[in-house]
Amino acid sequence: LLYEQVAGEIESQIQNQTLSPGDRLPSVRQMSRAQKVSISTVVQAYIHLEQKGLVEARPQSGFYVKPQGFQLPEPDTKKPHFKSTSVSIGDVISSIFGAAREKDIIHLGAACLSPELYPSKKLNRLTSQVLKETPLHSAQYDMPPGYLPFRKQLAKRMLHSGAKVRAEDIVTTAGAMEAITLALKVCTRPGDTVMIESPIYYGTLQVLQSLGLKAFEVPCHPRTGVDPDEVRALLKKEKVKAGLFIPNFNNPVGSLMPDENKKSLVQIFSEKEIPLIEDDIYGDLTFSSQRPSTLKRYDNDDWVITCSSFSKTLAPGYRVGWVISKRFQEQLEREKFISTVATASLPQYILNQYLADGGYDRHIRHLKDVFSQQIHRVSDTICQNFPKETKFTRPLGGFVLWVELPKHIDSVKFHDQALQKGVSVTPGVVFSARGSYKNFIRLNCGNLWSPEIERALKKLAQMAHGME
Amino acid sequence: LLYEQVAGEIESQIQNQTLSPGDRLPSVRQMSRAQKVSISTVVQAYIHLEQKGLVEARPQSGFYVKPQGFQLPEPDTKKPHFKSTSVSIGDVISSIFGAAREKDIIHLGAACLSPELYPSKKLNRLTSQVLKETPLHSAQYDMPPGYLPFRKQLAKRMLHSGAKVRAEDIVTTAGAMEAITLALKVCTRPGDTVMIESPIYYGTLQVLQSLGLKAFEVPCHPRTGVDPDEVRALLKKEKVKAGLFIPNFNNPVGSLMPDENKKSLVQIFSEKEIPLIEDDIYGDLTFSSQRPSTLKRYDNDDWVITCSSFSKTLAPGYRVGWVISKRFQEQLEREKFISTVATASLPQYILNQYLADGGYDRHIRHLKDVFSQQIHRVSDTICQNFPKETKFTRPLGGFVLWVELPKHIDSVKFHDQALQKGVSVTPGVVFSARGSYKNFIRLNCGNLWSPEIERALKKLAQMAHGME
Repeated sequence: LLYEQVAGEIESQIQNQTLSPGDRLPSVRQMSRAQKVSISTVVQAYIHLEQKGLVEARPQSGFYVKPQGFQLPEPDTKKPHFKSTSVSIGDVISSIFGAAREKDIIHLGAACLSPELYPSKKLNRLTSQVLKETPLHSAQYDMPPGYLPFRKQLAKRMLHSGAKVRAEDIVTTAGAMEAITLALKVCTRPGDTVMIESPIYYGTLQVLQSLGLKAFEVPCHPRTGVDPDEVRALLKKEKVKAGLFIPNFNNPVGSLMPDENKKSLVQIFSEKEIPLIEDDIYGDLTFSSQRPSTLKRYDNDDWVITCSSFSKTLAPGYRVGWVISKRFQEQLEREKFISTVATASLPQYILNQYLADGGYDRHIRHLKDVFSQQIHRVSDTICQNFPKETKFTRPLGGFVLWVELPKHIDSVKFHDQALQKGVSVTPGVVFSARGSYKNFIRLNCGNLWSPEIERALKKLAQMAHGME
Repeated sequence: LLYEQVAGEIESQIQNQTLSPGDRLPSVRQMSRAQKVSISTVVQAYIHLEQKGLVEARPQSGFYVKPQGFQLPEPDTKKPHFKSTSVSIGDVISSIFGAAREKDIIHLGAACLSPELYPSKKLNRLTSQVLKETPLHSAQYDMPPGYLPFRKQLAKRMLHSGAKVRAEDIVTTAGAMEAITLALKVCTRPGDTVMIESPIYYGTLQVLQSLGLKAFEVPCHPRTGVDPDEVRALLKKEKVKAGLFIPNFNNPVGSLMPDENKKSLVQIFSEKEIPLIEDDIYGDLTFSSQRPSTLKRYDNDDWVITCSSFSKTLAPGYRVGWVISKRFQEQLEREKFISTVATASLPQYILNQYLADGGYDRHIRHLKDVFSQQIHRVSDTICQNFPKETKFTRPLGGFVLWVELPKHIDSVKFHDQALQKGVSVTPGVVFSARGSYKNFIRLNCGNLWSPEIERALKKLAQMAHGME
């Protein structure tokens, strides 16, 4: 492809050091004239280089060659296993997280943001407004499917991901994990197999375990997520009752499935008439200017069930999420009633007002700037301090890094030692039903950068050097 | 027994009309002197007559013979079945409740209160206070087991039911149904059998169905709940993994297990080391001056798991409940995380403040007065208008009536017809895993009495007369 040629030329200039770290690339217009290609080709080329981690975009300024120190490699994608496995990770997880909840710890474990990053002031102002306008909000159950004006706002926001959905097909939930549980409940029974990507958020694995479901893992590429061809091949190996993927900024690897792959994935599942659940909780947190597509966008045959929440963007303490499906709407509504009867009314009213007032997009832009900066800082600190066998991801959104430590390091022991030194990390084993990723850790970059965090990272680096 | 003799004498005076409806019984002291029995014997006799529905206590005034019109009998207790049954009532229920959610209907179906009966004003005032004092409340997950000061308040309130529990043994939840689900999850697996009372709240049956559990029903006496001897006998018939009862004001029959029976029930389950789940959501809503005991009170060996919420007393829209168990605390905490990650923080902060400020007891006293009045009014209307084969309960707390219509009436058809006339009722079949109670309906008395409600009840009466 033309853009790849353009990108390849620049890449070789970086490699032979014609272009040095910190150098600014020619502007898109200049490049277009010089290479006699269209502007959009140059843009594609630059984005491609950015995604490869060779250059970085600086807002209002252009693209710059990244510092060399940044060049520790990315983790490799695992080879697939060809069958499902039962899930039993509950005990590991609770022993890990029990210890990590103490207050005096630098939290690089759980995927949480600094509280200051949420728009609490505005939400509190809106709360006072809601108290005045609907003083009886707490005196009634807001029965499933949930508060209609809020669901209309959610339907509107889905347009940003290219998906047209009706408010009637949305059921509000107590956060995204309830949404995912409901989605799994309507399409599986205990003993069934669910195809998931690997690594995947441990909460998802706990839900599978709790519902008595087996996991059929597909390796997730750290940039592009699962490979549809591999998915297609693996689906032939075993009867699968549902798929469950995080197409936008998989937690923990930060991958983003290209649109073509999303489209293929939806096609594959639709052809086989298998429900395809997407967890889109990080979708809004892209580092690029374009909000990525949901699988729902390509869901012509209504097999995709979209789950999400505002816990990573607006208010984790509100516990508000949602699940979207036309085909399964009635069953989802029923399972929601059985699960927790209704979603709390006040937070739905507040969030509805927040979305209606505008300002969400501005808030998200701010978050993204903070996250991409923090990820760069943590990445730099890793490159400068960790053993040189270390590998780590270049996430394209979200706020976590997935770090592969030298092979001999057992990350559960690493976690235990780190905790004794006052730092929490999440060991890789909890992100797989098979106990893979023994030498991986996930680092949370959602906390505002501080000298404490830098010191914490250097402690981790020291530990990694010391563990032989 | 002596008190039965005293009661029997009065009863015959009522029957031969020496004592007429509206007459005041002699004071306890007078009666004690006249009959030469102890004061406590007279008190027992009067309470016995009250429970039989022959006399009624009027606060600050004494006991009065009840109006004759009130004398439609109570429903009989069913004979037990000797084995468990699988549960599949989901479809019936959702078809029923879908229709009943419309706005212009007189809601005698769902067990809901008039919104004005909740202390919204005070809760809203406390909300403003919380927003000021903890402006970042929404910006953090309040991780399980939940907000400690709130759990301390809950532990304190448990003392009113005679139970000493530690705040550390309480996990807060998104309402009582989540609490019950978590409790069942920690002691059962799909396919297991749970002993429940019959009739029982349909939400409980839906949860059993959703978890793939079988129900082993024990008949519930309309005044005294399940009979411990019967429980003991039935436990010999089949392997049971948990018991689940509503000892205080069973929904729908309003029964209250006597303390001796509660004690025996706990003993029976403790001896067999079977977890015993109690749903205490109506426990505070007693019509007597004494808050009834929880099973937890008698739980010396730590087999009781207590579940409850404030949805029937303070704020259904908040979705806050809790589950109490020392033995299963860790597992409950873990299952809570898997279910909905965390309980919303704001409502826990508000409710904590509400309990700390006092005034809950006063609020409850007010609710009880309203409910007992409304139940009397609905009861009178039934007696004056329904077919004379009708039977109904004399609940000792809560706000629902359980009505046995003439045998030939199919209550699902009755429900459908009522809905067409703008009135919702809950048909009896949804309160049993076996589809029993075909000619029963549950009437909600939680709405403030109004001419509309009276008209609605008369419509129901007319329909009952008309259905041949």
